[in-house]
Formats: sequence, structure tokens, C-alpha cells
Amino acid sequence: MSELTNRLVAGLPAGSVVLDPAVTEAYRHDMAGFCEAGEPAVLVFPSTVEEVQHVLRTASELRVPVVPQGARTGLSGGANAVADCILLSLVKMDRILELDPVNRIAVVEPGVVNAVLSRAAEAHGLTYPPDPSSWESCTIGGNIGTGAGGLCCVKYGVTSEYVLGLDVVLADGRLLRTGRRTAKGVAGYDLTRLFVGSEGTLGVVVGAVLALRPAPAPQLALAAEFPSAAAACAAVNAVTEAGFTPSLMELMDSVVVGAVNRFGRMGLPQATKALLLVAFDGPERSRELAAVAQLCQAAGATETVPAEDQAESELLLQARRLALTAMDTLGTTMVDDVAVPRSRLAEMLVGVARIAERCGLTIGVVSHAGDGNTHPIVAFDAKDPDQVTRAMESFEAIMALGLELGGTITGEHGVGLLKRDWLARELGPVGLELQKQMKGLFDPLGILNPGKLF
Amino acid sequence: MSELTNRLVAGLPAGSVVLDPAVTEAYRHDMAGFCEAGEPAVLVFPSTVEEVQHVLRTASELRVPVVPQGARTGLSGGANAVADCILLSLVKMDRILELDPVNRIAVVEPGVVNAVLSRAAEAHGLTYPPDPSSWESCTIGGNIGTGAGGLCCVKYGVTSEYVLGLDVVLADGRLLRTGRRTAKGVAGYDLTRLFVGSEGTLGVVVGAVLALRPAPAPQLALAAEFPSAAAACAAVNAVTEAGFTPSLMELMDSVVVGAVNRFGRMGLPQATKALLLVAFDGPERSRELAAVAQLCQAAGATETVPAEDQAESELLLQARRLALTAMDTLGTTMVDDVAVPRSRLAEMLVGVARIAERCGLTIGVVSHAGDGNTHPIVAFDAKDPDQVTRAMESFEAIMALGLELGGTITGEHGVGLLKRDWLARELGPVGLELQKQMKGLFDPLGILNPGKLF
Ligand SMILES: Cc1cc2nc3c(=O)[nH]c(=O)nc-3n(C[C@H](O)[C@H](O)[C@H](O)COP(=O)(O)OP(=O)(O)OC[C@H]3O[C@@H](n4cnc5c(N)ncnc54)[C@H](O)[C@@H]3O)c2cc1C
Ligand SMILES: Cc1cc2nc3c(=O)[nH]c(=O)nc-3n(C[C@H](O)[C@H](O)[C@H](O)COP(=O)(O)OP(=O)(O)OC[C@H]3O[C@@H](n4cnc5c(N)ncnc54)[C@H](O)[C@@H]3O)c2cc1C
Repeated sequence: MSELTNRLVAGLPAGSVVLDPAVTEAYRHDMAGFCEAGEPAVLVFPSTVEEVQHVLRTASELRVPVVPQGARTGLSGGANAVADCILLSLVKMDRILELDPVNRIAVVEPGVVNAVLSRAAEAHGLTYPPDPSSWESCTIGGNIGTGAGGLCCVKYGVTSEYVLGLDVVLADGRLLRTGRRTAKGVAGYDLTRLFVGSEGTLGVVVGAVLALRPAPAPQLALAAEFPSAAAACAAVNAVTEAGFTPSLMELMDSVVVGAVNRFGRMGLPQATKALLLVAFDGPERSRELAAVAQLCQAAGATETVPAEDQAESELLLQARRLALTAMDTLGTTMVDDVAVPRSRLAEMLVGVARIAERCGLTIGVVSHAGDGNTHPIVAFDAKDPDQVTRAMESFEAIMALGLELGGTITGEHGVGLLKRDWLARELGPVGLELQKQMKGLFDPLGILNPGKLF
Repeated sequence: MSELTNRLVAGLPAGSVVLDPAVTEAYRHDMAGFCEAGEPAVLVFPSTVEEVQHVLRTASELRVPVVPQGARTGLSGGANAVADCILLSLVKMDRILELDPVNRIAVVEPGVVNAVLSRAAEAHGLTYPPDPSSWESCTIGGNIGTGAGGLCCVKYGVTSEYVLGLDVVLADGRLLRTGRRTAKGVAGYDLTRLFVGSEGTLGVVVGAVLALRPAPAPQLALAAEFPSAAAACAAVNAVTEAGFTPSLMELMDSVVVGAVNRFGRMGLPQATKALLLVAFDGPERSRELAAVAQLCQAAGATETVPAEDQAESELLLQARRLALTAMDTLGTTMVDDVAVPRSRLAEMLVGVARIAERCGLTIGVVSHAGDGNTHPIVAFDAKDPDQVTRAMESFEAIMALGLELGGTITGEHGVGLLKRDWLARELGPVGLELQKQMKGLFDPLGILNPGKLF
């Protein structure tokens, strides 16, 4: 065994250090396309804070890179192995330590799966809002690592809004406690939010205090069919301008609707050019849904179908949740994640259609439309080098368009490996320099998830 | 004129550099008690970003400290002059540059007064939620500097939740743009939130993109009288546990109620030991208020008085907004700002009463009870050295109690000069070291509001 392995084994319980290539191979990648992944030296599964500290101390002493991993559902290569690294999987640290209905907080370990926390909160009449479509598998640690969003974020906000405090193991193995357990607090710089979305490059999250909310009533959803993406986007803006705050406002184009229908036998309206789903969960949801149906019709909707009950609503939402998986049946997929000001969503969608045409590729679009956050999904044949080239070209064109429209290259999936080169463009030279200095401050040896973000 | 003044004058329009001691004297202090203030070298009123850059470049070259100032309503000494500094008042940069109802954002200069923005948003059916009681005078730049809270934050969250992007002039005069105009975005580290609450120690905010929300319906408020603070706190927890989210939940003790009555001729129930104000602004507010009245009675309320209409509600809220001003009539006041987990609020209030007794001082208490955030207001005779000593002792005892109860030394007013020594206790050695390194990264010469926070 190498010195690295020896030292890791010396400080960790039996079974938590894995060298078997058949196993480590499975942990090399997250779910992003087009991202390289190196050969890890070792895969470790710590189950306590102290064990994580041991791993980081060892890594610092031996100058070995460390890649923190949750469920590896990431879509930017952020959790991919780098050469000769320690893959540090947090999935065994999966306890909910506290669930406190009076203070409306949960204290959790990083490996807790999003849906597990959501269900535990539900049992107390509470909810943990951030709900990425991957919620049945992704972890809170990964959600914090990426600053995850989801479907209900249009009303309830994203991960960043729900993280009150963190326990973080730093590159040198020291334990940092940030933030608080209180609803409010402004003592010193907000390091908590600095870690949210930092993609494992500043420290390893080993514990989190999360804010919960009272569970809302079940959503009531409406589906509206549009003859064009632009008309659907006009409806989105009309809904916002009229002062409504839906609990969900999602858009799918015909490519996605078709894929979902074939995959899930959903019976969604196939002929439509754009399908908008809008839901409300407040006490006036029926009235709000009716008003939104009218706004959709005024914006050109050819059909509006309000769900009759919760079961029908759930079916519509389920269709949306299946979108990525369904698109996978069309070929190898790459999911982009661009956000623009809501008012410019139509330009984004029209632009994506033009890019698909120019590149001669199938690009399906799902959009957290209420947030102006669009996921164009490029489907291509990974065995055809020309298609691969064109897929990459389309991806770049989409990010360029996002920036041109006053947007960002990533609304929720993060930068990882995939968008490194684009981060510099978005931040500009002053921002990039400061961000790199920040990285240097937390990780002077450059061992924490190197090559990600920058 | 000194070299400093010469160089400032050379780059700023006539009238924006002030040396007259009669004027500069008035700008030496914010509204905190017990905080020293140095003699400034000069007071400047830039009106453009470029002018701020000129000031910072000059300050860096000549190694002169710079103290950014908004309306100086701060309660921690954060805006107080330090010896031979440039007082950099942002109040002339007071334009609302954009107010965009489709994207629900405002783009503002830092000197915009909170209430001015709120009213401008209102004209579009929107609202900028953070509403410190000082909202008629405090500035958005100051709100960002302190991470200000307010009355409605129990439902809508604090300043940090509403800042999407910032323009910041760095210590060396470079302009940094952070964040975005989009609803979501996770490209790189969250520098935006790092600046919120950084009290002018990392850079000068010269522009902000703020999120707005649809204006809620007018609040309907209820006043409940309790025979003890503990009973009132039990009611607060019962309300939360039952899943209600009031738009306001404020507590005043009898000292404050008395002061408000005398000052504002308000006719509040004088005999009560604790007065709880609870309001709702949702479509079911009448029903919710009735349910909360019952919860209050169950917790021991001797009287519950629901406002009959909006005018009565406004009167109750007005009483709360006057609390600090009214307490000033009892002597020199010092306002503390401790937040504890909501479930421990009763222990906090009982503890404060004990501290008042032990120190032989009048301490009135107002509390953003729904957030566990308490403002004990110590009233004393500033001319009596013994009272001053005891006032300071009480202040320390209150902070110690806050930490002991799992809380923070500042819920919303910030650290400034007042709580410097306590910040180290709250953060612990690892946190403190990292925060100081962060400061060093942004301000290597130590010219930005030196002596504040640390
Ligand atoms: C079908 C599908 C649907 C999806 N839908 C959404 C969606 O709606 N919204 C959305 O935002 N995302 C979505 N995603 C992307 C992904 O699920 C999220 O990015 C999620 O937050 C990743 O969590 P994870 O546990 O899988 O983390 P991983 O992929 O394992 O890691 C993500 C990043 O966080 C870092 N990290 C993980 N754990 C820690 C830790 N403890 N400390 C420090 N850093 C850590 C990693 O190094 C990596 O950089 C989807 C993905 C799929 C496959
Ligand atoms: C009667 C009264 C009631 C109050 N009620 C509340 C309340 O309910 N909630 C609450 O949170 N606070 C409250 N406060 C405190 C105070 O109003 C807030 O802290 C407010 O945010 C300060 O704003 P300001 O414009 O007066 O800033 P200042 O006091 O001038 O400055 C505050 C801090 O921000 C920094 N700063 C100011 N402008 C900038 C800038 N452009 N760039 C960088 N740094 C800057 C300063 O250096 C200083 O550290 C109250 C104060 C009073 C007097």
C-alpha cells in the first residue's frame, strides 16, 4: 500500500477506505457530459467529522487532491475525480441530527438525501423547500456545494436562502463553524453563503443548520398550450406583472413533451410548441389559477387545462420531473443551465431554437420559466465526432447568448469543469482575480477539488 | 490645504469636499452610544462612481483611512469617524436608476433612502421588504452595510435576501461588479452576500440590484396583553408551532409601553407586563388573527385586542416604530441587539430583567419576537459615571447571556465599534482568523473603516 493509503487506513475504521478499481471506477464521474475524469488514488467513506479531519490533514501533509462527493448527480463535472486524488464521499454521514419545529430548523449531516429530509420535515408539518428534480437521490451536501435550485424556488428561493450555519472542515483539517442557529444574525462576514455554491473548492461541509418552513397546501396546477415559445414567455411575464407568485412555473417545448410522452406514457398534448405549467399553493389557489388561465389565453394559449384535483396536478408535475431522464432516450444528452432576466426569456428560447437549427441538432428545452432559468438539453450521438463537435458548439453558443441577454452562465448547476472557461467571461478580470485570491486564502496548497471553477 | 485635500479637490466637483469643522463635527457619529469617534481630516460627498474611485485611489496612495457613511442611523458606531480619516458620505448618490416590474428588480445608488425606494416600488404594486424602524431616514447603502432587518422580516427575510448584485469600489479604487440581475445564479463564489453586513470594511457599495416582491395586502394587527414576558414568549412559540407565519410579531415590555404612551399619547395598555403585536397580511388574515388570539389566550393573555381596521392596525405598528425614540426620553439610551433561538426567547427576557435589577438600571425591551431578536434598551444618566459603568456592565451581561442561550451578539445592528471584543468570542479562533484574512485580502493597506468589526 502507498503511504497515502497507509495513513488513511490508520485513522479510519475498517471498510471505509476503498481501493478496488471496480468500485472506484463507478465513483469517478458525476452526471455531466463532456467532462474528463482522472484516476483516483483512493475512495473514502468517512462517517464522522473527525474522520473527515483526518482525511484532510493527511491530504494536506502529502499534498494530495481531495474531491468531495455527494450523490454525484451533479451536471457540471464538479464531483469528477482528478488524477491521483482522494475521492471523499460524504454519503455515509447521513443522519438528521435535529428537527426542531419550534425554531423551524433542521441540523443535518451532509450525506442526507434531499427527499429524506423533506419527508422528515413533512412529518412535523414543515418543508425544506429547495427541490431539485434529482431530489430523490441528491444530498444536502451536494445541494450546498452547488447552490441547488428546483421547481418551487420561483416562490420559495434556492438553497442559499435556507442555510443558516455550517460546519466545514478546512483544507488543513481544522474545523470551522460559520453562521448560527438563530433566524437572524450579522456577526462578521457571511462565510456561510460563501460556502454555498463553492463546489467543494473551499472546504468540506460536514454539518448544516437549515431553515424549514411550514408545509404549504398541496399545489394546484394548470397546463397551458402555446403556438410558440414567445407566446408562452409573454404569458410568464404577464403573470408576474399582474403580481402573482406561483409556486411553480415551468415551460417545456415540444421536443421535451414528446420525449416525456414516449418515456412515461404521459399523454401530454403532443402538437403544442410550448407547454407551460403553473401552480399555486396558497389559500386562493383556485381563483389564482383561473386568473392565470385567462392571462395565458390572452397571451395566445390554444388550450388551458386546469388540474381537477391534486392527483392530476401531481401527474403534470411528474411529467416535468421526468424531463431529463426522458430526453436521455434521444441520445447522449448535455444539459445546459443559463439564466436570463425573466423579461428576456423569449429571446433566449428563440435563440436556442436558432442554435439547434444552425448546429443541426435536437435541443429540447425545459425552463424554470418563472426564474428565467433555462435548461436546453442537447441530444446527440456521442459516437459521431462531428455531432460531438456540434454539440459542444451549441453549448458555447447558448452560454454566449445567455451573457448577451444580461444573464448568467449557470442558474443552479454550477461551473465545475464544464464552464470553467466561461466563468472568467462572466466575472470579468477584477471579479476573477478576487475569486482566485479567495480560493488561495482557503486552500493555499490547492488540494481542494483542484481544476474545478477556475 | 493638505496634500490629501488638494488631491481630493482636484478630482471632485466644487462643493463636494468639506473641511468646515462645524459641518464635519455633525458627521462624526452615528447613533450608537458609548462609541468613540475620531477627528476626520475631511468630509466628501461624491456623486458618481468615478468620484468614489478617485477618493479611494487617493486614500490608497496616501494611506488615509476611509469611513463610508449612509444616513448615520447605525447603532454600533460603524459609521463613526476614525482619526484623520476621509468621511465618505454616499447620501448624494441617491438615484433610483431602474424600477422594473416585469423582472421585479430595482437598480439603485447607495444613498437612496429606504422609504423612498419603498414608495417608488409601491407605485408599481411592488414592495422592498426590509423595513428597519429607521426606514424614513436610513439608506440602502447603510442597510447593505449592516445587513439590516426590520419588522416584516419575520415573514419576508432580511436585507441579505434582497441583494442580487452589487457594484463595489475596492480599496485601491478598482470597480468590482458582483452577482447578477437574474432571479437565480451560482457562477463563482457569492461575493454579493459577503459584502452585505461587512460594515464598510471590504469596499464601498456604489450600486445595487435589489429584488422586489408584489406588495402584500395591508396588515391586520392584534395586540395581546400578558401577565409576564414568559407567557408572551410561550404564545410566540405556540404561534410558530401551529404553522402560522405572521407578517409581524413584536413584543414590548411595560417600560417601553409606558415610554411610548407618554411620548406619543398612544393609549396602550399601561398595566401589562408584556404586549405582543401580531399581524398578518395574507388573504386569510382575519381567520389567522382570530386563531392567534385564541393561542394567546391559551398562553395566558389577559386581553386580546384585534384591530378593527387598517387604521387601528397602523396605530399599533406606529407605537412599535416609536419605541426607540420614546425610550430616549428616559435618559441616554443604549440599544442592544441580541438574537437567540426563538424557543429561548423567554429565558432571554427573564435574564434581561434580572440584569436590570442587578445593575439597578431601567432596561426596556422591544423584541422582533418572531425572529428571537431582542433589543434591550438601557436608559441611564450619562453624567453619572457610576450609572455609565453599570450600563456598560448590563450590556456585556446581555451579550454573554445571548451567547449562552445559543444566540448571536447581533441580530441586525452589526458589530461596528461597540461589539468588537465580543465578535471574537462568538466566532471562535478559527472563524476569527479566516475573517481577518478575508479583510486583509480586500483591504491589504487597512484603510477601509479600520477598527470596525475587529
Ligand atoms: C435528473 C437530474 C435532475 C436535476 N435537477 C436539478 C434541479 O432541478 N436543480 C438543480 O439545482 N440541480 C439539478 N440537478 C443537478 C444536481 O442534482 C444538483 O447539482 C445537486 O445539488 C447535486 O447533489 P449531489 O449530492 O449529487 O452532489 P455531487 O454531484 O456529488 O456534488 C456536487 C458538487 O458539490 C460538491 N460537494 C458535494 N458534497 C460536498 C460536501 N459535503 N462539502 C463540500 N462540497 C461538496 C462536489 O465536490 C461537487 O462540486 C439535476 C441532476 C439530475 C441528474
Ligand atoms: C430609531 C432607529 C431605529 C432603528 N431600527 C432598526 C431596525 O428595525 N432594524 C435594523 O436593522 N436597524 C435599525 N436601526 C439601525 C440603522 O438604522 C441600520 O443599521 C441602518 O441599516 C443604517 O443605515 P444608514 O444609512 O444610517 O447607515 P450608516 O449608519 O451611515 O452606516 C452603517 C454601516 O454601513 C456602512 N456603510 C454605509 N454606507 C455604505 C456604502 N455605501 N458602502 C459600504 N458601506 C457602507 C458604514 O460604514 C457603517 O458601517 C435603527 C436605528 C434607529 C436610529
